[in-house]
Amino acid sequence: MAIPTVPSLVTSRAEVMSFFARRNILVTGGAGFIGSNLARALVELDARVTVLDSMAPNYGGNEFNLADIRDQITFVRGDQADAGTVIPLVAGTDCIFNLVGQVSHVDSMEDPLTDLRTNVVAHISLLECLRRHQPQAKVLFAGTRGQYGRARPGPVDESVAIAPVDVNGINKHAGESYHLLYARTYGLRATSLRLANTYGPRHTMRTHRQGVLAWFVRQALDDEEIRLFGGGTQVRDCNHVSDVVSALLLSMASSVTDGEVFNLGSSSPQSLSTIAQTIVTTVGRGKVTEVPYPPHLQSIEIGDYVGDFTKAKRMFGWAPVVELEEGIADTVAYYSRHRDHYWQRGVTT
Amino acid sequence: MAIPTVPSLVTSRAEVMSFFARRNILVTGGAGFIGSNLARALVELDARVTVLDSMAPNYGGNEFNLADIRDQITFVRGDQADAGTVIPLVAGTDCIFNLVGQVSHVDSMEDPLTDLRTNVVAHISLLECLRRHQPQAKVLFAGTRGQYGRARPGPVDESVAIAPVDVNGINKHAGESYHLLYARTYGLRATSLRLANTYGPRHTMRTHRQGVLAWFVRQALDDEEIRLFGGGTQVRDCNHVSDVVSALLLSMASSVTDGEVFNLGSSSPQSLSTIAQTIVTTVGRGKVTEVPYPPHLQSIEIGDYVGDFTKAKRMFGWAPVVELEEGIADTVAYYSRHRDHYWQRGVTT
Repeated sequence: MAIPTVPSLVTSRAEVMSFFARRNILVTGGAGFIGSNLARALVELDARVTVLDSMAPNYGGNEFNLADIRDQITFVRGDQADAGTVIPLVAGTDCIFNLVGQVSHVDSMEDPLTDLRTNVVAHISLLECLRRHQPQAKVLFAGTRGQYGRARPGPVDESVAIAPVDVNGINKHAGESYHLLYARTYGLRATSLRLANTYGPRHTMRTHRQGVLAWFVRQALDDEEIRLFGGGTQVRDCNHVSDVVSALLLSMASSVTDGEVFNLGSSSPQSLSTIAQTIVTTVGRGKVTEVPYPPHLQSIEIGDYVGDFTKAKRMFGWAPVVELEEGIADTVAYYSRHRDHYWQRGVTT
Repeated sequence: MAIPTVPSLVTSRAEVMSFFARRNILVTGGAGFIGSNLARALVELDARVTVLDSMAPNYGGNEFNLADIRDQITFVRGDQADAGTVIPLVAGTDCIFNLVGQVSHVDSMEDPLTDLRTNVVAHISLLECLRRHQPQAKVLFAGTRGQYGRARPGPVDESVAIAPVDVNGINKHAGESYHLLYARTYGLRATSLRLANTYGPRHTMRTHRQGVLAWFVRQALDDEEIRLFGGGTQVRDCNHVSDVVSALLLSMASSVTDGEVFNLGSSSPQSLSTIAQTIVTTVGRGKVTEVPYPPHLQSIEIGDYVGDFTKAKRMFGWAPVVELEEGIADTVAYYSRHRDHYWQRGVTT
């Protein structure tokens, strides 16, 4: 099937669709991977979309991600930590998808203060603006399975202890904690979705440090070797970005999600080795090889991770619908078509 | 009994005393309450003590705290977040008591970014300096019972879930998490003590926002009303600062504490009402009254808290020895003598 811009789960629900029509929506980090896919879905739902993005080098922001909806949205280039930029944007805005974030685990270890600025300071600043200037707005935060840290046996639900193994996990957890604190203390309507591995169109392809699936796709398209550390036996939950967009829309449109945290996840987690092999088969180029685990990455490797998304299913009716093969085919097709807009390397690669 | 500068538990242990003799020690935040009491104990133990303190207004730093040991220590006024200041100080230093911190719960809610700078950014910066320039040093962090958040029935041990109810708790937990992460990842020798309510000489007396016992003592000495929110039935673990100093010394001198977290606590927790009454009786002035709980403070009130310090007792032989009456008498005597150096009010009161 063709993967729709507005996810099927949402299009089947008229009440969710109509929720966003003519509503003022702010998407922070909206020129990045998930934000730009979300912005397109919102435009199709007839929402009034404003995108805030700093377009910082080495992050996911890419002008091409929004090029064909550019005249249907308001785009603001600016820093979320600057209250002067944010206050006018939140005035009269009902829904804020707060997707600003630094996602590279390795970068977070090399430069913890930059990770802190992006994953904590920017959010404190936004929350302060909201509690003072737009306390009735709902804000949705993108957390991460990295908050749980190293693998446990069996699916991880939201009651599992927080035990991050890297700087990114510590900071993401602090960022989420701030959202929930402001919900309890000031009555802000805040929700966090803890994302697993998200893949699909509009991901940055300039560095191997953000999103292992995206990098595998690039390597296959370039007919390179995909080198799997330790054989790639680690299991990952992969979500096509359209499924993540549907989770964002459904949880935003519901009030039972206020003050709550939800895992996303996949019905069929796969090993990195299976994922890489599926990509090579789909592309028809590249090859998969095994290399030993680099010692400096071993300490932040989390092992197998399988998220339990029962709570999201129960409370706002979400489940992923895109199978891995289908999602990878869609992803490969996108980058084959638009390679020129994604292949230029950033300075960190 | 007279409360000794070097705590009794330590003076009875020749091996711990000799551990610090002629050793290079850095105390950050060392002009503040706990830091200056610790610095005095270290000077008595013949250590080579360097104190780093920013002397920031509205914090605990007070020149008088160090006045009579000023020529026996090296004092550096500077910012812990400035690597250029810190790198020369950690070179050749075996032990770092990392006591920089913002402790006011109310201030943290009003100005979360300043709390973040003091309780997280300063520590990331120090840890980065250590891993690059002095990876063999041991660093001791002052955590807080505020990391646990609202009260649970029965004593709280270190396995209880982290669930802070204010900005200070979120940031303190992030600061501690960084220490433990750097221990696991880079082999730094890091330990955290989660402090309860510490009281005694050399506490700031310029604001009611830091340390409820200190403020009660001031009010009694000034013959004012001590107003207890909701009757003051909340139970608190109180530690005289000499007991906290002994915990700092013992845990620093031991290698079994590396990478571990420990609660401090009291053998006889008391209600705020009992504490206030004991202070009024000791001082012979002031009086205790009840007022309703202010709504803006209710959401960050934690209720009763009793810490379980079994782990600290088992692993490094610590237990508090100063009873509340005795500790309060010592505290009152100190401020009666040195009132002029503590009574000037800061701008936040």
